[in-house]
Amino acid sequence: MVSGGTLGGGARVTEPLGAVPDDVLKLAQRVLAQACDKDLSIATAESCTGGLLASLLTDVEGASHAFERGYVVYSKQAKCELLGIAPEVVERCNAVTREVAEAMASGALAGSHADIALGITGFAGPGAPDDEPGLVHLACATRAGHRAHRECHFGDVGRGEVRSGALRVALEMMGDGLRVSDPPTP
Amino acid sequence: MVSGGTLGGGARVTEPLGAVPDDVLKLAQRVLAQACDKDLSIATAESCTGGLLASLLTDVEGASHAFERGYVVYSKQAKCELLGIAPEVVERCNAVTREVAEAMASGALAGSHADIALGITGFAGPGAPDDEPGLVHLACATRAGHRAHRECHFGDVGRGEVRSGALRVALEMMGDGLRVSDPPTP
Repeated sequence: MVSGGTLGGGARVTEPLGAVPDDVLKLAQRVLAQACDKDLSIATAESCTGGLLASLLTDVEGASHAFERGYVVYSKQAKCELLGIAPEVVERCNAVTREVAEAMASGALAGSHADIALGITGFAGPGAPDDEPGLVHLACATRAGHRAHRECHFGDVGRGEVRSGALRVALEMMGDGLRVSDPPTP
Repeated sequence: MVSGGTLGGGARVTEPLGAVPDDVLKLAQRVLAQACDKDLSIATAESCTGGLLASLLTDVEGASHAFERGYVVYSKQAKCELLGIAPEVVERCNAVTREVAEAMASGALAGSHADIALGITGFAGPGAPDDEPGLVHLACATRAGHRAHRECHFGDVGRGEVRSGALRVALEMMGDGLRVSDPPTP
């Protein structure tokens, strides 16, 4: 059951979905190559990007085994139940905080067999009056103990732009995390 | 840790990811409108589409509350652990069977609060010698008891084409499932 209003006449796809910029596609290829080279695998936990990061990381022929699993945790309940985040943490600032992003990355790492996990939470478009459109928190966690956080203010530039910007930063962070990770010991 | 080979020189993004055909975008809008009109929510469990269905269903302004959660279960372990599918079921035919698709839909429904769930498993591109490129199994399950299955043979037409074809069928099935579902009783 949906908690909230109805669609209304204003609902629309704001631009062709998935017109992912070329540099983002190239970044995804590079991250997958890094993961494969080191025999490391990836998990994602996405809110505002809604599965787009996972879809990028599963669209390269011969590299799909590097992607272990993805969580699309759009609802607050999904964030809590799938990633073990405390309800009071998710309630703060409509779940768009550093704390939530970090808990998403840690939860995805803890719940999976992946070596590196990335969490993304943000406001892709206008929401409640206090929500800042374009605010995105991202966090990376690796099995080896690397942790990173980024806070982005993309502005009210449209859902597609915010999503692309978030993907770009997410892939950069994943690249950094893979760079400092050692291959698993046999 | 990745079980399998390394990327090799042949790995590539075969075409611009996410060039989702216009009719598929329109279908996604229609499905979300149906869900919102009836106050019903959606869950997805994706393998070969890798989160693309979830990303479509979270890219419409004012309708994102209709999407409850998504599972991107690329690895066999993820299918078993996140959706409760028996390992021996996943092992058969490299997890591309009617049984797996139905278990993905049922598992996503059982594990979430959504009213309708869709499972997709298939071979987007060439894999093991016995894998049929373009074979996709899809299943839909609703809280009210509606069940549906579709088996598609898209052929060796490239990852993008197979993914788009699978999205189209998935959204049609979701539309059918929503049509026969009643709004939740207050």
